[in-house]
Amino acid sequence: MSPLSTKETAILLIHCPDQQGILAAVTQFLNKNDGNIIYLDQNVDRAESIFFMRVEWELDQFAIPREKIADYFDTLIAKKYSISFTLHFSDERPRMALFVSKMSHCLFDILSRYMAGEWVVDIPMIISNHDDLKPIAERFGIDYYHFPKNSSNKEEQEAKELALLQEMKIDLIVLGRYMQVLSNNFVSRYPNKIINIHHSFLPAFAGAKPYHAAHERGVKIIGATSHYVTTELDAGPIIVQDVVRISHIDSIDSLVRKGRDLEKIVLSKAVYKHLQRKILVFNNRTIIFN
Amino acid sequence: MSPLSTKETAILLIHCPDQQGILAAVTQFLNKNDGNIIYLDQNVDRAESIFFMRVEWELDQFAIPREKIADYFDTLIAKKYSISFTLHFSDERPRMALFVSKMSHCLFDILSRYMAGEWVVDIPMIISNHDDLKPIAERFGIDYYHFPKNSSNKEEQEAKELALLQEMKIDLIVLGRYMQVLSNNFVSRYPNKIINIHHSFLPAFAGAKPYHAAHERGVKIIGATSHYVTTELDAGPIIVQDVVRISHIDSIDSLVRKGRDLEKIVLSKAVYKHLQRKILVFNNRTIIFN
Amino acid sequence: MSPLSTKETAILLIHCPDQQGILAAVTQFLNKNDGNIIYLDQNVDRAESIFFMRVEWELDQFAIPREKIADYFDTLIAKKYSISFTLHFSDERPRMALFVSKMSHCLFDILSRYMAGEWVVDIPMIISNHDDLKPIAERFGIDYYHFPKNSSNKEEQEAKELALLQEMKIDLIVLGRYMQVLSNNFVSRYPNKIINIHHSFLPAFAGAKPYHAAHERGVKIIGATSHYVTTELDAGPIIVQDVVRISHIDSIDSLVRKGRDLEKIVLSKAVYKHLQRKILVFNNRTIIFN
Amino acid sequence: MSPLSTKETAILLIHCPDQQGILAAVTQFLNKNDGNIIYLDQNVDRAESIFFMRVEWELDQFAIPREKIADYFDTLIAKKYSISFTLHFSDERPRMALFVSKMSHCLFDILSRYMAGEWVVDIPMIISNHDDLKPIAERFGIDYYHFPKNSSNKEEQEAKELALLQEMKIDLIVLGRYMQVLSNNFVSRYPNKIINIHHSFLPAFAGAKPYHAAHERGVKIIGATSHYVTTELDAGPIIVQDVVRISHIDSIDSLVRKGRDLEKIVLSKAVYKHLQRKILVFNNRTIIFN
Repeated sequence: MSPLSTKETAILLIHCPDQQGILAAVTQFLNKNDGNIIYLDQNVDRAESIFFMRVEWELDQFAIPREKIADYFDTLIAKKYSISFTLHFSDERPRMALFVSKMSHCLFDILSRYMAGEWVVDIPMIISNHDDLKPIAERFGIDYYHFPKNSSNKEEQEAKELALLQEMKIDLIVLGRYMQVLSNNFVSRYPNKIINIHHSFLPAFAGAKPYHAAHERGVKIIGATSHYVTTELDAGPIIVQDVVRISHIDSIDSLVRKGRDLEKIVLSKAVYKHLQRKILVFNNRTIIFN
Repeated sequence: MSPLSTKETAILLIHCPDQQGILAAVTQFLNKNDGNIIYLDQNVDRAESIFFMRVEWELDQFAIPREKIADYFDTLIAKKYSISFTLHFSDERPRMALFVSKMSHCLFDILSRYMAGEWVVDIPMIISNHDDLKPIAERFGIDYYHFPKNSSNKEEQEAKELALLQEMKIDLIVLGRYMQVLSNNFVSRYPNKIINIHHSFLPAFAGAKPYHAAHERGVKIIGATSHYVTTELDAGPIIVQDVVRISHIDSIDSLVRKGRDLEKIVLSKAVYKHLQRKILVFNNRTIIFN
Repeated sequence: MSPLSTKETAILLIHCPDQQGILAAVTQFLNKNDGNIIYLDQNVDRAESIFFMRVEWELDQFAIPREKIADYFDTLIAKKYSISFTLHFSDERPRMALFVSKMSHCLFDILSRYMAGEWVVDIPMIISNHDDLKPIAERFGIDYYHFPKNSSNKEEQEAKELALLQEMKIDLIVLGRYMQVLSNNFVSRYPNKIINIHHSFLPAFAGAKPYHAAHERGVKIIGATSHYVTTELDAGPIIVQDVVRISHIDSIDSLVRKGRDLEKIVLSKAVYKHLQRKILVFNNRTIIFN
Repeated sequence: MSPLSTKETAILLIHCPDQQGILAAVTQFLNKNDGNIIYLDQNVDRAESIFFMRVEWELDQFAIPREKIADYFDTLIAKKYSISFTLHFSDERPRMALFVSKMSHCLFDILSRYMAGEWVVDIPMIISNHDDLKPIAERFGIDYYHFPKNSSNKEEQEAKELALLQEMKIDLIVLGRYMQVLSNNFVSRYPNKIINIHHSFLPAFAGAKPYHAAHERGVKIIGATSHYVTTELDAGPIIVQDVVRISHIDSIDSLVRKGRDLEKIVLSKAVYKHLQRKILVFNNRTIIFN
């Protein structure tokens, strides 16, 4: 629970064509400017010849002021090696909106971690198409916005949601068993910033009622999958998956019950990885750094 | 989530020396008296030649009034086959006391299931040796009793706790990372009615600081174990265990973080099995019915 | 490794509409005729109201001669309760044919169990569309038949295979990474008697090249599935599944390597369950008794 | 199965006190001398402040002749950073001796991988205290040496074994359920070069009869542990562990049966990691590179 470093840090997520000297170039850039590296994880996709890296260093002795780091890195290193990068700072506290429907298990799991201070995040709002979970939001002192949706008002309600998200400066949207499909317009505003939990081991049983489908097919293991939402349903980059063994004895009800434990843990693990800036998306797949 | 039967049911947990005809005798007793069996699970320990069984049937057409079932079964069946049994009714709502210290993850997990109506239980009280988690109890509207303990007042404080538990008619005590060892006197008042979560894969790393010990030993998998508390520390009948893979990269902090998810799920699974009367204890081991 | 009983036993696999008294009726039938039950596992599918059971008893004191058991059980019990059943005897030694292509891991795993006497089975023959594994068959002293197949000779070669299987009195066909699709005609001759291993977590990635597909989709877990072969490709009743965690670091080659360990174990577990007569197929799903 | 590179490579395993610039120094040393890096995995133990690394590069363009690499690296890099290192070459084919007793499952698993060419290794000999498995060794054409041991001849027999191992230039000893404890003298000749499989989830159930102990304790999960052998019994650095879920239904026999599948896979995984030079031992713990 104690952070590795209490100092402020900068984090670089990098990918580029693999080439000799890239790792030395980046680490030298940090070393020469007195950036004490406290984390480094890298790997090469040999099949596609792409280099991936996450590096984190302390800012306090770093020679380059934080507002100029991106510019210097771009000029001195990134251009030379055709690097794509994103730069983050540990003191940036992401703002998360939580979307829920009627089931409370993911909501409780996320709020309990939030309350316990496990995550560096602010959760200023919960959005729902139902009002069932409003009492829980109130218990935790979080604003709850009710946007009921049907086939005729979806566009209009999404417009209100988008306006509110923008006003509240939301960086990350987490769908905690939110039982509505977001429109392509909505999704495209938050690329790789909407995390969903699907209650199956994707790509098996995409779409509606996966536990019914799993029972019908007679599988011996069920799963849950957290992924970034893209415009193609249940087809976005997978972040975390987990499974649990079942048998012929399990009814659909018991699959639902066992699945809930998977869903909440798998969703929270994905959110945690995102908040740590340990996910890099490439070609609809994720690199999950250690 | 929907119960298999909304009718009131009776549940028999049975064990006896294995012998020809025992299964037929019990099922006939129920059939002849118009008890519609909705659940039956049985098995034989061949090494020790013991028969174990859980059977559940609907009461509405059952010919024997519920207050006489134990007597009739004892006279007509149990004596003949040397059966030990306990009888439960589905409309008996157990009363649980939750003991916690400073960590909130097990508390939240249990309360979230309680609030969502997943469990048939009442939780009228939380007891703690610290007051850190009192605000959470208040959020959920549950009475919180603070009994700070030290080496000199332990006996006295336990006496108060025992009086309170008795007054509140508590049937089940759940230790949700309660960081105090209960005295033998306390434990012997609640045989197979105190469930603890130990943060290791028992019997490995019994006692204090199991994550430190696991890190020191360099294991590649860590675990959590829920068990009934007996007077021998961390040696009671094991109910549920689960594990998660780790590596040399994991610091003690990350073991603690990964372990939390195991602990809360493993504890809640054990409580759920207990509340369903699906656990039978024999020779310091558990039979966990399907 | 030592059998539970060294006496000859009979095994009944039963399913029927669920009804009061069915369990008592079957166990009484065995008890009254001095059949000592050494195994009983049963369960009810509440959604479809079907009763499933496997019961095994010793023959030596049983009042009904083994050749008349099926007839008596049918007349006295099965007709009354609309029971479908199959009857097996522990001294019937199934005869297995093993189909392989070029990969040896499943072949070695099966033969090592066979040589060690883990399974009650005879394996008189190996059939392949290639001759790569012939030296291994020879090492183990098992006849190897080479039936190379292409688009023009498939029907003809299958006819030869079927004739040989019949001549050799084969009861069970195991496809140990046999890379040819069997025709509907072939499959329909051996209903629930052909076990295949598919190198994915079905229904995900059915068909060809599942590891490539898994890599492309970016899943975080891969699996293997053993199932009975039906005329619909990769859609037969699932027997055993298992999974292993992977990451972005894994190349397709490393998925193939990790998958091999899953495949061989998952296939051998399914064969073992089949040989023990612990599988009952109902509605394209399997009931796997304990 | 196809190697990442068919070119000859050099492999460095490194550890040293963590310090700024170490990663850049090593990678620059290779880059400057035209060593094309095809693998790099590194991490820092923050608690102990130790840097660990495995790097592999192609030799064909490398400016330093292979016989001088160790010397140059030591002089130019290792001394400066207090690095401990070992240097390996991909074309060095380790020579393995396999020790077995009466059980064949590990033996078969290893030999099947050896025959299939999965491992870069030579296995010129099998040593046993029994002659039960000699026929299998003959089937595979591998020399089998029978050294029966008892309390009075152990020292003498070990002397013969050691002489033979030396004569055969053995680099790695694998104990595939070898049921004899090796003397401290024997063990100290092969530090981190003897791999054992213990049939429990260590440190639980060290010593004899772990399945009996697991059954007695009533655990819900059993495991297997591969580790380097040290002079302290079952206490050496752990390489791989895996587990399988069990229940009250499992007899000791079924634990033994389920455990066999774990044991062979866990042992073979450890051997594979060793052969790839992906294991570094530090403070009785292993760093297992990706």
